[in-house]
Amino acid sequence: MTNLNVSILQINPTIGDIKGNYNKIINGIDNADKNNSDILLTPELSLIGYPPMDILRRDKMYDIQNKKLNSIKKYTTNKDVAVVIGYCRRDDAGLYNSAIVFKNGEKLTNYDKVLLPTYDVFDGHRYFETGDEINVFELNNQKIALTICEDAWYNVNIMDAKRHKFNPFDKIKDYDTDLILNLSASPYRINKNNERIELFKEHAVNTSSTIVFCNQVGGNDELVFDGNSFVVNKDGVIEQLNAFETDMRTININKNSNETQLNTPRRIEEMNSAICLGLQDYFEKTGFSKAIVGMSGGIDSTIATVLSVQALGKDNVLGVSLPSKVTSTESITDAKSVAENLGIDFEVIDISSIITQVINDFESESPYKMEGLALENIQARIRGDILMSLSNTTNALVITPDNKSEAAIGYCTLYGDTVGAIAPLGDCYKKHVYELAEYHNEVKDIIPQNVIEKEPTAELKENQVDSDEMAEYEILDTILNEYVENRKKPDEITVDSKEEIDNIISKIHMSEFKRNQSPLPIRVTKKDFGRGWRYPIAADYEFLK
Amino acid sequence: MTNLNVSILQINPTIGDIKGNYNKIINGIDNADKNNSDILLTPELSLIGYPPMDILRRDKMYDIQNKKLNSIKKYTTNKDVAVVIGYCRRDDAGLYNSAIVFKNGEKLTNYDKVLLPTYDVFDGHRYFETGDEINVFELNNQKIALTICEDAWYNVNIMDAKRHKFNPFDKIKDYDTDLILNLSASPYRINKNNERIELFKEHAVNTSSTIVFCNQVGGNDELVFDGNSFVVNKDGVIEQLNAFETDMRTININKNSNETQLNTPRRIEEMNSAICLGLQDYFEKTGFSKAIVGMSGGIDSTIATVLSVQALGKDNVLGVSLPSKVTSTESITDAKSVAENLGIDFEVIDISSIITQVINDFESESPYKMEGLALENIQARIRGDILMSLSNTTNALVITPDNKSEAAIGYCTLYGDTVGAIAPLGDCYKKHVYELAEYHNEVKDIIPQNVIEKEPTAELKENQVDSDEMAEYEILDTILNEYVENRKKPDEITVDSKEEIDNIISKIHMSEFKRNQSPLPIRVTKKDFGRGWRYPIAADYEFLK
Repeated sequence: MTNLNVSILQINPTIGDIKGNYNKIINGIDNADKNNSDILLTPELSLIGYPPMDILRRDKMYDIQNKKLNSIKKYTTNKDVAVVIGYCRRDDAGLYNSAIVFKNGEKLTNYDKVLLPTYDVFDGHRYFETGDEINVFELNNQKIALTICEDAWYNVNIMDAKRHKFNPFDKIKDYDTDLILNLSASPYRINKNNERIELFKEHAVNTSSTIVFCNQVGGNDELVFDGNSFVVNKDGVIEQLNAFETDMRTININKNSNETQLNTPRRIEEMNSAICLGLQDYFEKTGFSKAIVGMSGGIDSTIATVLSVQALGKDNVLGVSLPSKVTSTESITDAKSVAENLGIDFEVIDISSIITQVINDFESESPYKMEGLALENIQARIRGDILMSLSNTTNALVITPDNKSEAAIGYCTLYGDTVGAIAPLGDCYKKHVYELAEYHNEVKDIIPQNVIEKEPTAELKENQVDSDEMAEYEILDTILNEYVENRKKPDEITVDSKEEIDNIISKIHMSEFKRNQSPLPIRVTKKDFGRGWRYPIAADYEFLK
Repeated sequence: MTNLNVSILQINPTIGDIKGNYNKIINGIDNADKNNSDILLTPELSLIGYPPMDILRRDKMYDIQNKKLNSIKKYTTNKDVAVVIGYCRRDDAGLYNSAIVFKNGEKLTNYDKVLLPTYDVFDGHRYFETGDEINVFELNNQKIALTICEDAWYNVNIMDAKRHKFNPFDKIKDYDTDLILNLSASPYRINKNNERIELFKEHAVNTSSTIVFCNQVGGNDELVFDGNSFVVNKDGVIEQLNAFETDMRTININKNSNETQLNTPRRIEEMNSAICLGLQDYFEKTGFSKAIVGMSGGIDSTIATVLSVQALGKDNVLGVSLPSKVTSTESITDAKSVAENLGIDFEVIDISSIITQVINDFESESPYKMEGLALENIQARIRGDILMSLSNTTNALVITPDNKSEAAIGYCTLYGDTVGAIAPLGDCYKKHVYELAEYHNEVKDIIPQNVIEKEPTAELKENQVDSDEMAEYEILDTILNEYVENRKKPDEITVDSKEEIDNIISKIHMSEFKRNQSPLPIRVTKKDFGRGWRYPIAADYEFLK
């Protein structure tokens, strides 16, 4: 029977901040040692932070990382805890995504990840060579296997995933291991925590081993890592660490499983947490504290404001209403109510005189008329300018309010409502935005019913409503979900109108140029329009209909 | 002795336009047949066009591609020519980047690419499985090997390239082949044509075979494929097809080598051709014909205009001067002279009243002052708005004038001068921009000396000159070349000032957010800031200094 204490160090690394991440690990070693822990497990690539992307191509990274690795090795001298660090190993053959184990000032073993994800947002083969053997080492008479993230996800049904050639856990099984460690940087998406638990439980049963899953936590650009680390045996989860925050626990792996303490938030609560952490860390890690949101009085910018306040605090968010001639009084008062409910600073800057001046000068100094689409867009773009001027003046970042449904079909003005540093709702369908509204109103009526109930409108011309210009959101969201996330062929999509399906597929790909210049969304689904969505712009998409 | 006629079909495919690309291939078959050709060779993935990116993840693609493949097979019935098509083969194990050979209505053989590039702009392993054997087939008693693009580039010293495990040409050598075919989609960068010829000459010597290199031509987003296809034997190049245009030749591979007819344009002429083709095809393949350039009178927007005129014709380019209060009369007259020299339409739209209105309303309706960076940026952003209004009004695309030196360090206004569909100079250092100016003035004085000689300025405040706000371009370009393109460590960079080097490296990575929302550049160097430059935004880059 295994009898080990394992410490899980669920840290929130800043990518590239090797010194800062090193300090977090050193603190972890001290705590683990204090708790009489036998093993301290850190996440995948814990020293550099995940995903490091092309930083892995910089020689300087290795100088500093390897120096810090050496310091960690020395730091384990005269301590009883074995420390497992995720790092990038470089040798003559190339780079490896590796785990190294130090104990008593010595290197015990090294493992190179064998399954590399190269699909969706993951670029494993861009950087790494494939490790060619599994690693089982002994510690305190226990047989322990090392694995890294994707190693546990052999041919799981993940959209876009390429098939791997073999299952490392099948090989590990032959070694009769007691314990399997998994260093991960496994990003959040809806239902990911449940999928992970089921998967690792299966591994525990198949290998008759206890498994320790250590995930990183925190937002890094579009990706949010949810933490949710755990220890699982064949009967179930023994203990789970917190979701969406740093955590460290020392767990005796002999303990009985107890799934009553699992993290089981509602889906919408979890999405909300993910987005807020993503926002918070984007600001933290770029060195900003203040946000500006252009508040139209509509549901999207309202929820973007609510999320910003939750992530950054009410004193750090400025709401701005930017009415033009076609803005209803209701829009301004709705925006103002939300700002008041949230207790944030609120400014109204009327852009109608600016628009008038632009139209006059444009029409008098060129032979063209400012009308139609140009007239609609100019309002959104002047708003973008004012928001960016406020950003420059107050050292704040602009929050982009656009949701995924709009971004998908290009129902947005490039350099207008798309301006900003990051799009918290960029991976939320319109229906998710409404769900978030209801969720936030559960505790306290932050969002006026009128904001939720009124007909969505871009309000760029008189009497405009979204549904006149695009499919009803319910139909749109269904098509998007099936086409974008589940990669269905048009004739497999469960919407009655072939015309509507074709129309939306066309719009999706005609908008590649807009998304190519839009801020990153915060990912909550299995396919967002960020770095994992890679389509050419100058291409013919007619054949996809 | 080999005695074969080989036709090289150097086509310009539109990605996704499978029907259009199919028609180009059918025409090629007709011509090859007419010329008594034994083999017709097409480029890599010739039916779908390269790079198809995530289109390869769409099931519908395979339905249509495979139907067209079948039609091509049938089309070869009663013809003597063997037709080699690049396509994506899908089986239960996954996708392969493949070449299929049809003759007399039958499939002769199939080859799956064995070396997949997964570095820089290439995502080989994202889509494809690795072919596991080389392919040598017989035709007219000749032994012929099939290879695809990267197969010929085994561990050539390409920046960022991962090392491959074996060299397919070493294996081919054992087969005593007469002829080796290479289907390619090999993008242009400075000196690429020479490197290719040297490389394939070496292969021809080592394998004692004649080699036919068939490249695609044309611009696809940031990449420009230069064509430059050729036949080479151990003594040198037998014949080379045109650069930067579609071409088809039937070549008797018994002919003696004759390198007097090689394409050897000057570097600057070649860069110019690449950018013009990139621009032309971006418009063609997105369905636009007209361009708008904001002309500041400076060298960058001047050259952007000159290139646009060369690519699209003078009747399709509108130049717009957008002076504000700080714009000198000289700037307007310089812009006007260039427009006149080019014979394009030219408008002057004064933005000073709009700026005044924006400042007034911003300052009277908010507690903030429009000053400093905000005041500089608002001018660039209002210009962006006017250009986009003209774009919306006239159904034209805006050309982004920014050069690589500016884009590298973020010396540009996001949503201001960065607006546009594509950046023709986005991969040209400032020095390249001057070289392009000299090049265009060789034939005819298009660009006034004053535009070339005056001190560069963003002209966003009084008496501003670039050199007050950033390193001299000569120093900047040296650092950028060594850091960005050659991936040098700071202490390897051959510029005296450590402070300047650190400063520029900081600026490069502090500007990731701007480039993330900027239009794609047209690639001319070995590392542009497009899809092959992948760095996180919310990261700490201090350690790279």
